[in-house]
Amino acid sequence: MRLRVGILGATGAVGQTFVELLAEHPLFEVTALAASERSAGKPYREAVNWLGRRELPEGIGDLTVQEAAPPLDCDLVFSGLDAAVAGDIEAAFARAGYPVITNARNYRLDATVPLLIPEINPDHTALIDRQDWGPDGAYIVTNPNCSTVGLVMALKPLDQAFGVEAVHVVTMQALSGAGYPGVPSLDSLANVIPFISGEEEKMAAETRKLMGYMVGGEAIPSEIIVSAQCNRVPVEHGHTECVSVRLRTPATPEEAAEALRSWRSPLAELNLPTAPAQPLRIYDDPRYPQPRRHAFAGGGMQVGVGRLQACPVLGLKFVVLSHNTIRGAAGGAILNAELLHAQGRLQSREAAVAAG
Amino acid sequence: MRLRVGILGATGAVGQTFVELLAEHPLFEVTALAASERSAGKPYREAVNWLGRRELPEGIGDLTVQEAAPPLDCDLVFSGLDAAVAGDIEAAFARAGYPVITNARNYRLDATVPLLIPEINPDHTALIDRQDWGPDGAYIVTNPNCSTVGLVMALKPLDQAFGVEAVHVVTMQALSGAGYPGVPSLDSLANVIPFISGEEEKMAAETRKLMGYMVGGEAIPSEIIVSAQCNRVPVEHGHTECVSVRLRTPATPEEAAEALRSWRSPLAELNLPTAPAQPLRIYDDPRYPQPRRHAFAGGGMQVGVGRLQACPVLGLKFVVLSHNTIRGAAGGAILNAELLHAQGRLQSREAAVAAG
Amino acid sequence: MRLRVGILGATGAVGQTFVELLAEHPLFEVTALAASERSAGKPYREAVNWLGRRELPEGIGDLTVQEAAPPLDCDLVFSGLDAAVAGDIEAAFARAGYPVITNARNYRLDATVPLLIPEINPDHTALIDRQDWGPDGAYIVTNPNCSTVGLVMALKPLDQAFGVEAVHVVTMQALSGAGYPGVPSLDSLANVIPFISGEEEKMAAETRKLMGYMVGGEAIPSEIIVSAQCNRVPVEHGHTECVSVRLRTPATPEEAAEALRSWRSPLAELNLPTAPAQPLRIYDDPRYPQPRRHAFAGGGMQVGVGRLQACPVLGLKFVVLSHNTIRGAAGGAILNAELLHAQGRLQSREAAVAAG
Amino acid sequence: MRLRVGILGATGAVGQTFVELLAEHPLFEVTALAASERSAGKPYREAVNWLGRRELPEGIGDLTVQEAAPPLDCDLVFSGLDAAVAGDIEAAFARAGYPVITNARNYRLDATVPLLIPEINPDHTALIDRQDWGPDGAYIVTNPNCSTVGLVMALKPLDQAFGVEAVHVVTMQALSGAGYPGVPSLDSLANVIPFISGEEEKMAAETRKLMGYMVGGEAIPSEIIVSAQCNRVPVEHGHTECVSVRLRTPATPEEAAEALRSWRSPLAELNLPTAPAQPLRIYDDPRYPQPRRHAFAGGGMQVGVGRLQACPVLGLKFVVLSHNTIRGAAGGAILNAELLHAQGRLQSREAAVAAG
Repeated sequence: MRLRVGILGATGAVGQTFVELLAEHPLFEVTALAASERSAGKPYREAVNWLGRRELPEGIGDLTVQEAAPPLDCDLVFSGLDAAVAGDIEAAFARAGYPVITNARNYRLDATVPLLIPEINPDHTALIDRQDWGPDGAYIVTNPNCSTVGLVMALKPLDQAFGVEAVHVVTMQALSGAGYPGVPSLDSLANVIPFISGEEEKMAAETRKLMGYMVGGEAIPSEIIVSAQCNRVPVEHGHTECVSVRLRTPATPEEAAEALRSWRSPLAELNLPTAPAQPLRIYDDPRYPQPRRHAFAGGGMQVGVGRLQACPVLGLKFVVLSHNTIRGAAGGAILNAELLHAQGRLQSREAAVAAG
Repeated sequence: MRLRVGILGATGAVGQTFVELLAEHPLFEVTALAASERSAGKPYREAVNWLGRRELPEGIGDLTVQEAAPPLDCDLVFSGLDAAVAGDIEAAFARAGYPVITNARNYRLDATVPLLIPEINPDHTALIDRQDWGPDGAYIVTNPNCSTVGLVMALKPLDQAFGVEAVHVVTMQALSGAGYPGVPSLDSLANVIPFISGEEEKMAAETRKLMGYMVGGEAIPSEIIVSAQCNRVPVEHGHTECVSVRLRTPATPEEAAEALRSWRSPLAELNLPTAPAQPLRIYDDPRYPQPRRHAFAGGGMQVGVGRLQACPVLGLKFVVLSHNTIRGAAGGAILNAELLHAQGRLQSREAAVAAG
Repeated sequence: MRLRVGILGATGAVGQTFVELLAEHPLFEVTALAASERSAGKPYREAVNWLGRRELPEGIGDLTVQEAAPPLDCDLVFSGLDAAVAGDIEAAFARAGYPVITNARNYRLDATVPLLIPEINPDHTALIDRQDWGPDGAYIVTNPNCSTVGLVMALKPLDQAFGVEAVHVVTMQALSGAGYPGVPSLDSLANVIPFISGEEEKMAAETRKLMGYMVGGEAIPSEIIVSAQCNRVPVEHGHTECVSVRLRTPATPEEAAEALRSWRSPLAELNLPTAPAQPLRIYDDPRYPQPRRHAFAGGGMQVGVGRLQACPVLGLKFVVLSHNTIRGAAGGAILNAELLHAQGRLQSREAAVAAG
Repeated sequence: MRLRVGILGATGAVGQTFVELLAEHPLFEVTALAASERSAGKPYREAVNWLGRRELPEGIGDLTVQEAAPPLDCDLVFSGLDAAVAGDIEAAFARAGYPVITNARNYRLDATVPLLIPEINPDHTALIDRQDWGPDGAYIVTNPNCSTVGLVMALKPLDQAFGVEAVHVVTMQALSGAGYPGVPSLDSLANVIPFISGEEEKMAAETRKLMGYMVGGEAIPSEIIVSAQCNRVPVEHGHTECVSVRLRTPATPEEAAEALRSWRSPLAELNLPTAPAQPLRIYDDPRYPQPRRHAFAGGGMQVGVGRLQACPVLGLKFVVLSHNTIRGAAGGAILNAELLHAQGRLQSREAAVAAG
């Protein structure tokens, strides 16, 4: 019996990725699609400007799009809503008793809301117990910004091995990170845009929360110092990041590579369907990783690290690549839900009501 | 009376830019074109795969390409030769009595050869006096790598105002920096390549030499610490660089902007034809500078600086843009020649022989 | 004394090109800028998202944007308005006594409105005499769609020499033809979009009108058969078109090239400032013309023709390139105004009132 | 028992696609890799500059590259050799007794060599019987040029239904069609190149042979008139083609769509592993097909047709999309081999020797 899921913001770019990734999911079945009033009442097939490379999955196209308000016929909701509306709508679903697994940024820094990367801080789901939306089993869980997730995936093993005091990151971000219609082609064609509004601040704050520790039921942010410069480049999918770190215990590039290679994901035993066999891949070829070639490694869930070198200024530097709409958005949220399921925090509405 | 110039490597990408920029130059007149044996003997029009957006300049197309060996009918030579052959050929011209103004990297770090950006270290031309090629008036002068020049143009005013101890730079470099045929389109299309062979080392060593000081006729390199990560992005012209610096005397972004804005180029009084009215431009719009829009500012000789911000890790950060084939190659070399001319270090062969 | 011009839709992509091209125009001086309510009242500098590669021209940035309604302080208006609003606003200006030189499509096929390419059908300005907006000296003149103008520039000399019965054209159109924000980057990146709404119909109807003849004060459309397939490609400026024609009198590629080369523009004697010395250029190199390299030839007003070949199906085929926002929009409209000026159809408001 | 295959030119772009597509093939197993002398003797992993998005398949990387000369340890060879060397090498393998399934152009127009698209002219394999290389079971079979295959896939059903007299095609071809390194990025970036050497001639000659009929053991070319104009556009994979046809029996776009939709591939019953369930797909959305979105439909073996419209000049027009390195090269060759296998024309060397 698969859990039934609703997708909020189903016609948007992130919503479509949810639809695509959930097409044949062993734990979840899409039973409800919700979007803005403009789309409500239409078959999904007509409401959506389908951007996927694969066909719209069988059966999904005929679902009628509903308004993004409870109730929806499902056990939990995934949210790909725009931040402009996500705050109120997600709260309404939580108050109505739904677990809300969201990609929106609104609640990421809320002290009672887990900002979650399952391989990095799975214990942060305990924050859920501090949420009180009324009904049992209702909560909000968030995943980080698309540019933060790859960075933190590479930082965590280094932090565990050597301690990371400070990180300097310059991103080269893909166009799909801006959604659709997103960046006008006349801005992106053969160009670099050295600015993404709000992104640098998000990378700093989210990294500190993700790298933080649970103490007495609270998530205490890491004191890691983060400096980010964010650029948009003409790439479809895959954020490339040049990262330099100052370590508490200095490490050579070889030692750092070994720490990354030998790192064991805490998910290794759980067999979560969306978790890649290898969450990190270390590239030896100095020309790699490259977004067009490697963003889809591990189904878009594997993070690539390359060009490990000594940094004369900070100590160690390297390049990180992660898929921004899969690992950095819909795929990350689905992995969050899989972790919550493994932790016994997701159940059918019937079971929830019976338990309540 | 204009000085007569020869162009070595005239059919290559840099050589073509020399031809284009010298088309109507008030001080120099192209009288000789030299290239590989394959091209020698052909009219330039036939030997060259002309890549310029403007037409091949009048009169130049009919010149017969010669072998790249002295003598050539000219008073000085500009060299756009590949490093693989530049060392020997340029030495041969110097030994034959020609001033050689080269874009090749071979002699850049030679202790007796000026590595020159006229606005930055015009006094380094005194190194010429330590060269001894035999004939009077013969010497080699180099300009820096295309990714170094923009960086140093922005660093120098900051160094003068606050002292720069360390610099961390991540480049996003244009395709034209790799010459022609250069990067295969299947590597660059909608992609980032996080590696440019040898580039990071060049940026470090050349920055130190350029920022150094003349003491007792020698150029003492700066002790500035440089860490560079170099990326290739699908842009035609214009290297964009994310720069962070640690200053001896900390400065706010506003103070740094003021230092950059109020900086006076030592060339200001010389009226060199290729020197831009404003060698530096500070962009206030956070979306700028962008390579497709701003690389050609000041005829490709102006360097843009934007996004001045505090850097939590190093102190100050910003974005630099410079045109890699103009300011960073042929245009920079021509400006070098103009400075040498203003310093009385260039004259006609007849005058040289008479003086000798 | 230059005529004073207003620009309607001054903040849009076409409006900005008007501003750029009129910056130092010998006949016209920009004295008024008008745009939507949202922009009205602001200095142009603030109202516009300036997309030009050159700086916003001196003096223009300080002009206060006005609402797009008469009166404006000018002798004539150029219109870069969107078709959605151009119809009413342009009529209002004509009724208020202004000559309206517009790039919008609304009146192009009106029987009393010239659809004008000065080199092609300068006599069509006589249609103005059939317009009656009330005040003397008031009229509307249009230029063709950006994809039509290059086609017709190449067809006309062939029609005069051999008679063109039918034309088959496949376009590969630049992104700037869709305005700003225009095509989302996720649609255009490394892609071809084989559809541009309404474009194929416009190319057929406008070509027939442009190739038509004035008889008894009316423009009788040509009976030329036109079939167009329009594609969007990831190019900034310059529409490339593969054209095949069936001629009444068959011609070899060499004969066609000769007809194109020897064609004399009827503007040759007029010395119009925006008219290129050579309105047509025939490329011999089979790789040319290319949009990134050749769109700006002749200041963006020259049309390139290449690859003249026999077509086994229709008789003759070739490639045409023209700059879509200069020759195909603002530049074309300015040339129209220059022709009207040369014909004595433009004068200052004072003169118009005095004459009236 | 799978047949053992060798790949000639295994390190090139087409060779790599063979390796990728044969990784888990039910009929064929890669047992030998051959390339130029430069690569011979190295493990494939080291000899190849692997361009695939997927990892180099397990087991293949360790194979030692051999020289491209018989004998090789395999039952048949696939050839992705450059035309410059393919002629002699392929003949050598045929003389040594190997079936040679090649993507090279050298033998395509040879009267005894099948130029084969399995869905289009499967009976042309009978030409094999006219080849005499010495050993039994030895022959050469070719697939068409990457730009021809999509065209012919769409023409054939129309020819069967209405008769195609003439076809006019304008291609917009992907960069991968030029191999690696192929087109320099400075030529392709934000550009169209209106010329591909030899391509237009190939499209004409190959289309006539493919559409031809077997009569008395000979392939009689169709008399269809073909005019092609070939362009290179900045797309990774997928050739888009604007096609207009003159039909013997005129057909509306709806009738043509119906003929294409109802067309039954002669392979339908054979269950060939690489044959797509639907060899043709008709797109109703006028914006489709698009290369970045749809080239990989049907594993890159499905051909897309869209924008069916009346053509005022020739009668009917439409857009075709096909994947150039899969359907148009390695995938097409593999499908050829699968057909030959189904026809009993491929067997193990042991069986061949025993039968001989």
